Amino acid sequence: MTTSGGGAERAGEAIYDLMRRLYPICRSITGDGVRRSLSVMQEYAPLELFEVPSGTPVFDWTVPKEWNVRDAYVKNIRGERVIDFQKNSLHLVSYSLPVRRKMSLAELRPHLHTLPEQRDWIPYRTSYYKETWGFCLTQRQLDTLEDGEYEVCIDSTLADGSLTYAECYLPGEREDEILLYSHLCHPSLCNDNLSGMAVLTFLARELQSERRRHSFRFVFAPTTIGSITWLARNEPRLGRIKHGLVVTLVGDPGPLNYKKSRSGDATVDRVLAYVLKRSGRPHEVLEFTPYGYDERQFCSPGINLPVGRLTRTPNACYPQYHTSADDLDFVRPEALAGSLEICREALRTLDRDAYYVNTNPKCEPQLGRRGLYRKTSAERDVGQRDLALLWVLNLCDGRNSLLDIAERSGLTFDIIANSADDLLEAGLLKRAVEQGSQE
Amino acid sequence: MTTSGGGAERAGEAIYDLMRRLYPICRSITGDGVRRSLSVMQEYAPLELFEVPSGTPVFDWTVPKEWNVRDAYVKNIRGERVIDFQKNSLHLVSYSLPVRRKMSLAELRPHLHTLPEQRDWIPYRTSYYKETWGFCLTQRQLDTLEDGEYEVCIDSTLADGSLTYAECYLPGEREDEILLYSHLCHPSLCNDNLSGMAVLTFLARELQSERRRHSFRFVFAPTTIGSITWLARNEPRLGRIKHGLVVTLVGDPGPLNYKKSRSGDATVDRVLAYVLKRSGRPHEVLEFTPYGYDERQFCSPGINLPVGRLTRTPNACYPQYHTSADDLDFVRPEALAGSLEICREALRTLDRDAYYVNTNPKCEPQLGRRGLYRKTSAERDVGQRDLALLWVLNLCDGRNSLLDIAERSGLTFDIIANSADDLLEAGLLKRAVEQGSQE
Amino acid sequence: MTTSGGGAERAGEAIYDLMRRLYPICRSITGDGVRRSLSVMQEYAPLELFEVPSGTPVFDWTVPKEWNVRDAYVKNIRGERVIDFQKNSLHLVSYSLPVRRKMSLAELRPHLHTLPEQRDWIPYRTSYYKETWGFCLTQRQLDTLEDGEYEVCIDSTLADGSLTYAECYLPGEREDEILLYSHLCHPSLCNDNLSGMAVLTFLARELQSERRRHSFRFVFAPTTIGSITWLARNEPRLGRIKHGLVVTLVGDPGPLNYKKSRSGDATVDRVLAYVLKRSGRPHEVLEFTPYGYDERQFCSPGINLPVGRLTRTPNACYPQYHTSADDLDFVRPEALAGSLEICREALRTLDRDAYYVNTNPKCEPQLGRRGLYRKTSAERDVGQRDLALLWVLNLCDGRNSLLDIAERSGLTFDIIANSADDLLEAGLLKRAVEQGSQE
Repeated sequence: MTTSGGGAERAGEAIYDLMRRLYPICRSITGDGVRRSLSVMQEYAPLELFEVPSGTPVFDWTVPKEWNVRDAYVKNIRGERVIDFQKNSLHLVSYSLPVRRKMSLAELRPHLHTLPEQRDWIPYRTSYYKETWGFCLTQRQLDTLEDGEYEVCIDSTLADGSLTYAECYLPGEREDEILLYSHLCHPSLCNDNLSGMAVLTFLARELQSERRRHSFRFVFAPTTIGSITWLARNEPRLGRIKHGLVVTLVGDPGPLNYKKSRSGDATVDRVLAYVLKRSGRPHEVLEFTPYGYDERQFCSPGINLPVGRLTRTPNACYPQYHTSADDLDFVRPEALAGSLEICREALRTLDRDAYYVNTNPKCEPQLGRRGLYRKTSAERDVGQRDLALLWVLNLCDGRNSLLDIAERSGLTFDIIANSADDLLEAGLLKRAVEQGSQE
Repeated sequence: MTTSGGGAERAGEAIYDLMRRLYPICRSITGDGVRRSLSVMQEYAPLELFEVPSGTPVFDWTVPKEWNVRDAYVKNIRGERVIDFQKNSLHLVSYSLPVRRKMSLAELRPHLHTLPEQRDWIPYRTSYYKETWGFCLTQRQLDTLEDGEYEVCIDSTLADGSLTYAECYLPGEREDEILLYSHLCHPSLCNDNLSGMAVLTFLARELQSERRRHSFRFVFAPTTIGSITWLARNEPRLGRIKHGLVVTLVGDPGPLNYKKSRSGDATVDRVLAYVLKRSGRPHEVLEFTPYGYDERQFCSPGINLPVGRLTRTPNACYPQYHTSADDLDFVRPEALAGSLEICREALRTLDRDAYYVNTNPKCEPQLGRRGLYRKTSAERDVGQRDLALLWVLNLCDGRNSLLDIAERSGLTFDIIANSADDLLEAGLLKRAVEQGSQE
Repeated sequence: MTTSGGGAERAGEAIYDLMRRLYPICRSITGDGVRRSLSVMQEYAPLELFEVPSGTPVFDWTVPKEWNVRDAYVKNIRGERVIDFQKNSLHLVSYSLPVRRKMSLAELRPHLHTLPEQRDWIPYRTSYYKETWGFCLTQRQLDTLEDGEYEVCIDSTLADGSLTYAECYLPGEREDEILLYSHLCHPSLCNDNLSGMAVLTFLARELQSERRRHSFRFVFAPTTIGSITWLARNEPRLGRIKHGLVVTLVGDPGPLNYKKSRSGDATVDRVLAYVLKRSGRPHEVLEFTPYGYDERQFCSPGINLPVGRLTRTPNACYPQYHTSADDLDFVRPEALAGSLEICREALRTLDRDAYYVNTNPKCEPQLGRRGLYRKTSAERDVGQRDLALLWVLNLCDGRNSLLDIAERSGLTFDIIANSADDLLEAGLLKRAVEQGSQE
């Protein structure tokens, strides 16, 4: 199931190509940019779109008005667009109110945002909950602006509409779900988070055709208000979610970082640690903190789902974060392919992990008679496969998962899981009834 | 609330002055010396005295007869007092029977106690439960005694009376109590335990005027029989004691030593470890052992209260222990002030620590709308105060105390507790009902 | 109780002498060789023999037919025995079918087993569950065989009969049992497992005359089918087994190896680790694995008894394993004596360990009045014996065993257990009712 070298390279390039298509589109927490992005992604995987009307109460929050922008610029006295939203969607503060006025530079100044310490980068700014407007530009651009009158145009609308999110649901043998979540609200920023959107789109595309025990649900929604909205609308069905992963910031060349769920010892935490360790890739496993991306909502105390987060360099830990330098040069196809590989392997392990019960628990069953045991009296020591059979039989008392057995035995998860399949077929194991499992 | 440098110096001197006044008084486990000491302490803090009659059964023990001594000496043939209780109360073995006889040195000898290896120090001896008499003196004194007749006088009484102890009770918002205990039975010994008596007297004095959630109870009683008597008389009310600390031997210049309670993981254990660590002062945290001072009784299996012990150099670990060299030169005002500071900080933390429940646990509440969240979209990363709000909201599910949250987050207890206060005021937290708490 | 230097030497020699007597006998999982071996062992300790008929179902297995062999050889054309079972019982594959035929070397060849990499050693082979026949010989022997006709004779019977095992039961004050198990099915191999058989025989002999709280049960049975048969027949009584130890491969000069029971934290696991550590002998404590000897059956999930395993060098970890080189030269009397010593000490500690309850749990009892406390006011610090009394009184709340107390206090198990005996006699302790204990 592991992608071979060449396959990984192709996968990385394909993900990167999707990002290239999505890059110019101006996304925000609502609006047509989101819809346009999702429709591109629908070419790759079967996404269903959902619209939630402005004003809908979602827990402590309210779905905001929908924001759309057709054009935005600042023209100088010579009619030249000195700041032009068409060139880079970051130039406009997200959720800026419509403006069409002439004003002096002095009047304009408080509405202009730069990064003085990074003179060539445009910052990323939003103002979702405070009605205002503004432009972002490089410090170098700002320094060239002459005194005089400017024409300011923000051809935007902020009006009742809806918040858009998408799901890709791949039903499995059971209703138990594994959730994958990516935020989609950031405009022309590549690592944050076209990388997560594109990697999950390709993962969904790839997994469609595979046998699954769990059902997989991919959710693409704006950060914070999107996950809150999704949780509020799906609250009665959250019990189905057995494992979850927020995938975001997975395109930069930094090492992989897995941030644990709130409990710190959920199966998803152990699986990600296991998969990352066995991958041999540079990585770190971070303790849970309540600051970050949408895992904040999934891991709030009243929701408390076992949802971790996979990134490469975490938010705010690289200088390009939330600036125009988080562009197509900053992300690497190899990094995208590696992130996809870890997600795939984690999903596969989560899906395969299970609790079984030995149906013949009093002493060992006679494996030789069933053709399962390969060791002969001529061999001094036991092979890995026979050992795996013994471990599985010994620990399958309903209290140890296959992952527990892999970890305790020191054998690979795959050998353990394959042995369990053989024993299941021989009638020497049966599936344990898991608490809260939805058949 | 921390005493500034000058304040700490003044506090140390004031505690030392109180010790100087108490030093000459001959205390024992009963008697007028105890009452006289307590009446001096009453000038500083509102102590209430209790008298328990001799013969009262207290668990496996019985309150002993009361011992008083007016004078005691050994005179040589020339009528000179060669051993004189008036000069140092340690010269008389505590609980010595009355004697008025002439006898040869040979006859006297078995009643004389010295420290041959410390020729200039008087040992401290008691004989509470075996009726006998004796004198303690320096080896150098003993060596000068000539053969011949001596006049021995112990003008003491051992008769029905009572055992005296004192309490200072500072009621708080709740009946839940924090107990502070110091033994008061040792005669002219400074570190053991005028230091504990004086530090707790000043702590009680200082805290009288402060707002408290818990009630504070200071107990001054003789060691072993005193704590046993106090526990026997207060048994029905012991459930109120949520945390306790024996404070003793806190005047020497050695590092602070906290000895854990029997369970080893009581809140008082964690708070003292936390406060000592953050204080930056040299210190050690010791595991519980059933040998020591009155924590032995509080931590007996049928009482089992969460009571730890704060000392500096523990008993028997310094050569001056239980000798006349444990005098006013051995204790230092700075050490006393430092011990007071740790007690104060520990009490404040114990008092403030609590369990809260997030009233809006499903996803994060919208803090911005309530003016609680300070981060703006221009900031790359979150500040400590905002982070503290998120941690408190995330972990306040009734199972994590503020101290738990401070430890897990790595933020200071004060930032966490202040954030909890703000969230409480905003209605986003409420107090959890604690098991066994007395409102 | 510890054997003195000379005693240990004599013990080692005596065990070795018993092994020397048993060495030539051809044992297998059934048959007269087993009975003959047990009758030799009965000269040393009171063993009772049990016979279980062939065909008896035992869990997933069936008691096999009984195998006996009178003679077996391969003669060359000159009538010389080129392979002779009379010289070494390893020459015949265990459970070989009867054969009496002439055949060419080419025909014979597939039935001959050697160790090409150890040219002078005869391998040990069995074929319990596949009906066939064969001879084992050294590679050097094989190389000398000339082409031509050979006379093959295996004068064996494989027929309904029974499986034989033995028990030595030493009743104690209680029905709670400690189980000791040794497999007895291997033919002329010394470490595996005449060593275990002989050490346990001497241990049973020695312990007959001692006071015991638990009952001790020694079981000698063939490996795998023997323990399965014993467990199946004794299933209703397994609740009595509080601790167990498989003793096997204990004669080689390697360090002692204790392999933990399935739970990894059973009392037997802690006692063996404690005893080995205090013995000062080189040793290792190994985690449980489901591969090994009869602990596999005792530790199967549906049996799940707290049974560990004591060996020296574990199976398959020394080159002589399962070859004729595991002979009388390979095992050492000193090693046997050391193994006996560890078994004896472990049994004594397991037998003595218990849960007690302080009958006077509220504050300390007045030990001085009962003559139990030795410290006087002249002593600065407390002695080990007084400290042990305080630890036992403090921790005997029914939740701490004497071993727990020894480990927490850092005092030796013997001081703790002796103190408990004194307090028991003084009425200050009583035995806790242990869950599932059989009085």
